[in-house]
Amino acid sequence: MSLLVTGSIGIDTIKTPHGVSEQCLGGSSIYFSMAASFFGPVRFVGVVGDDCPFDLAAVFRGRDVDLRGLEVRPGSKTFVWHGTYHDNMDDRTTDYVELNVLQEAPPRVPDAFKDSTSVFLANTAPALQLELLDQIIEPTFVAADTMNLWIENDLADLKRLLQRVDCLIINDDEAKLLAGELNLIKAADAVRAMGPATVIVKKGASGSLMCGADGRRFILPAYPATEVKDPTGAGDSFAGGLMGYLSKARRADFDTLKTAVAYGTVVASLAIEGFSLDALADRTPAEIDERLDSLRTFTRF
Amino acid sequence: MSLLVTGSIGIDTIKTPHGVSEQCLGGSSIYFSMAASFFGPVRFVGVVGDDCPFDLAAVFRGRDVDLRGLEVRPGSKTFVWHGTYHDNMDDRTTDYVELNVLQEAPPRVPDAFKDSTSVFLANTAPALQLELLDQIIEPTFVAADTMNLWIENDLADLKRLLQRVDCLIINDDEAKLLAGELNLIKAADAVRAMGPATVIVKKGASGSLMCGADGRRFILPAYPATEVKDPTGAGDSFAGGLMGYLSKARRADFDTLKTAVAYGTVVASLAIEGFSLDALADRTPAEIDERLDSLRTFTRF
Repeated sequence: MSLLVTGSIGIDTIKTPHGVSEQCLGGSSIYFSMAASFFGPVRFVGVVGDDCPFDLAAVFRGRDVDLRGLEVRPGSKTFVWHGTYHDNMDDRTTDYVELNVLQEAPPRVPDAFKDSTSVFLANTAPALQLELLDQIIEPTFVAADTMNLWIENDLADLKRLLQRVDCLIINDDEAKLLAGELNLIKAADAVRAMGPATVIVKKGASGSLMCGADGRRFILPAYPATEVKDPTGAGDSFAGGLMGYLSKARRADFDTLKTAVAYGTVVASLAIEGFSLDALADRTPAEIDERLDSLRTFTRF
Repeated sequence: MSLLVTGSIGIDTIKTPHGVSEQCLGGSSIYFSMAASFFGPVRFVGVVGDDCPFDLAAVFRGRDVDLRGLEVRPGSKTFVWHGTYHDNMDDRTTDYVELNVLQEAPPRVPDAFKDSTSVFLANTAPALQLELLDQIIEPTFVAADTMNLWIENDLADLKRLLQRVDCLIINDDEAKLLAGELNLIKAADAVRAMGPATVIVKKGASGSLMCGADGRRFILPAYPATEVKDPTGAGDSFAGGLMGYLSKARRADFDTLKTAVAYGTVVASLAIEGFSLDALADRTPAEIDERLDSLRTFTRF
């Protein structure tokens, strides 16, 4: 399976109780691609302004991340995000945002990427997610993320998108909001009824929940991390590990999805051990497998 | 192993988004005993006033709960608690409390119970927990619960208690408070360093975490409950299922403790499906085993 991701590229400034990282590389497609690249090739689609201070070719050097879908748009400015994490490291405040190029036309999918079979549509306006998806000729497994902004303001578009998505990966509060249901299991089942055969709910430090057909469920705690420095990108690293593993496995049955969720959990736990990509970029597939084995030991009875 | 519990017996009035239950039976020793009785005999130690409207012999009829440690104290009044659960069913407000007999002398352990080997000291002042424990001749496995009130006001007594406890079962916020550490894994390890070889952290709807010697950890999500009516007693039912299973297994090594935590999780998930003891009292050991198998399926990858 050929895996394509489309999402944001950001200039992040992050404050956590463990320090500050100014003007570091961030964005959903960045974390996703780094995470997925441990498992196989990634086709990257995203847009920055000509002010972008990062050399993405250097960032992904030695990894199979195809940057032909990276557009550097003259006269535009790159997405900027400033956030502060609270003491519990789970809640955060957005201090400052400039959407910049993200509120312009989306990047185009290069012809060479249009035969992609596996697609991850990171969080953005559902109309844009649909526009990007329309450019893929025959996708076989489409996953998407979304957020409260679109649930509250673009529900009709989001519902159209959900009809075309195999898997929605969504935060717990957003799942409850989308379903209008406070019980998380019922909420996930209600979201499934809107289209996606599989709904994966991210619960931050509490792990994740997956609901599939015929009442099938998978519940996995987060990896018991003791060195959390910066939770930014945890959700997109989770999605990257998950989709990367699925592409490698060339299957998406429920048992394969379980292992994919476990790999996503493990990769996310590595990502949050450093600011930006610092911790994740240093890891090896062997370390990821080792942590997966630990997670299995920690959860099995 | 002979299992003894000492804790509160309460007249509860509970409001949840699913309804109201007025003047129903509650208290830690009640939920614990009902939960543990599915696995084997329970020796019950607790005190009520002579106003107590409940016939505990009838409540536990047909179960192996020995009520010789139940004291009905003339002239005293029974513990009263009124609570309201918020929409998320995880947070609650205490509306009204009368400690009554709980602030008098604790009940005495009957001579016939003094040879108990397994002891659960439900949450109360650590000095009282110590006083109760002193009456047991040679306990081999002692578990206790505590709360923020004692951590903040009776820390010296609590630390004395921790030296004599094999297993502390505690809420996540309380573990962090006791350890002065915001990372839950580090907090649990720090509490272990205060005495108990095993620390089990209850995380409500997010499940539980157990830390043992040599960095051994066990993390289990909550059972994916869809019909939560009243979370009161979930923690004490968890402890009851856990300790009941341990007594039946006659071992407390880490693997046995894992299964015990899983049984505690399952029994708690049954308890919260109804007000007071309504849901739990109706269950059978076969239903508990069936739900344990489901939980294993839901969590295994």
